[in-house]
Amino acid sequence: MDLKSKILKEAKVPKEGILKVDNFLNHQIDPELMMSIGNDLAARLKHTKPTKILTVEASGIAPALGVALALNIPLVFAKKSLPSTMIKGYQTQVHSFTKKTDYNIFVSAEYLQKGERILIIDDFLAMGNSIVGMLTIIEESGAECVGIGIVIEKTFQNGRNVIKKYGLVPESLVKVSLATPDKIEFED
Amino acid sequence: MDLKSKILKEAKVPKEGILKVDNFLNHQIDPELMMSIGNDLAARLKHTKPTKILTVEASGIAPALGVALALNIPLVFAKKSLPSTMIKGYQTQVHSFTKKTDYNIFVSAEYLQKGERILIIDDFLAMGNSIVGMLTIIEESGAECVGIGIVIEKTFQNGRNVIKKYGLVPESLVKVSLATPDKIEFED
Repeated sequence: MDLKSKILKEAKVPKEGILKVDNFLNHQIDPELMMSIGNDLAARLKHTKPTKILTVEASGIAPALGVALALNIPLVFAKKSLPSTMIKGYQTQVHSFTKKTDYNIFVSAEYLQKGERILIIDDFLAMGNSIVGMLTIIEESGAECVGIGIVIEKTFQNGRNVIKKYGLVPESLVKVSLATPDKIEFED
Repeated sequence: MDLKSKILKEAKVPKEGILKVDNFLNHQIDPELMMSIGNDLAARLKHTKPTKILTVEASGIAPALGVALALNIPLVFAKKSLPSTMIKGYQTQVHSFTKKTDYNIFVSAEYLQKGERILIIDDFLAMGNSIVGMLTIIEESGAECVGIGIVIEKTFQNGRNVIKKYGLVPESLVKVSLATPDKIEFED
């Protein structure tokens, strides 16, 4: 089943603007769908010649692993708590639109180095806050972000414009333009 | 490269008993290795006829996805914070040996149901605390745990004995019997 059909069939909208895809992406994971998502994003982003993928735990890991497999490059996930064994690393604060809280993300310095070409993969693009957090960390590390791949973009939020200020255009598999308890609509 | 070679080559032991495999499992992920781990654990545990996999975010997700793909069944990851959209669910407290803190894990009721045959997959088996947490949640849900697959077991800690009290024998890909800054040894 393709991603749009899966969203129409299984996503829930408890409140306008909140798209709950716990059934196959954010809590329960459909493994075949993750590989299909990984292949699709890899095909669209291969030309950026990435050497490494960066995502944020936990929901980003499964689709990012699909892309990493398709491109045969390693994957790094930013952590939401300070790793007890981290010696030197980067951290920045991210605001969660869904949870209305701030959290920090951490990446060990040894896994983001100058000269690396980083492809960011994330499950959602809403306000762009977690992407900006990753961009901040990549910049601090001296690595370069060469592309951004998103599973589901909410085009009724501002993430795409926020990211454009960094000179990057996100590649989104599916663009949701409306999410209400009665109706989900796609752009394109 | 097989898992033992990878551990000997890339694992770090900052302190006796602490095995840091951030380079390919817990922070940076080697995607091919995850598929190989997934295939190996699936081959050993297929006979338990699982209908679903359960793991805990975040480090369990990648190897569990490998197993889920090999067995073609869905994967559920227990969350470490209460999902904002969770209506009914199970929760229990887990003590982290490595981080010396307690945390809660959560699973939505809709993803663990009576009659389901659950295979637990986790990256590490040390004291067994996170496995016991998952077993507690599975029991509360009315589902059945049919098997436990572990990537790296530390046999110098008590996890295996703790799990045996639940009538289950973990299947571990690699058993580390000694981890010091100078030397890592395997059992078998």
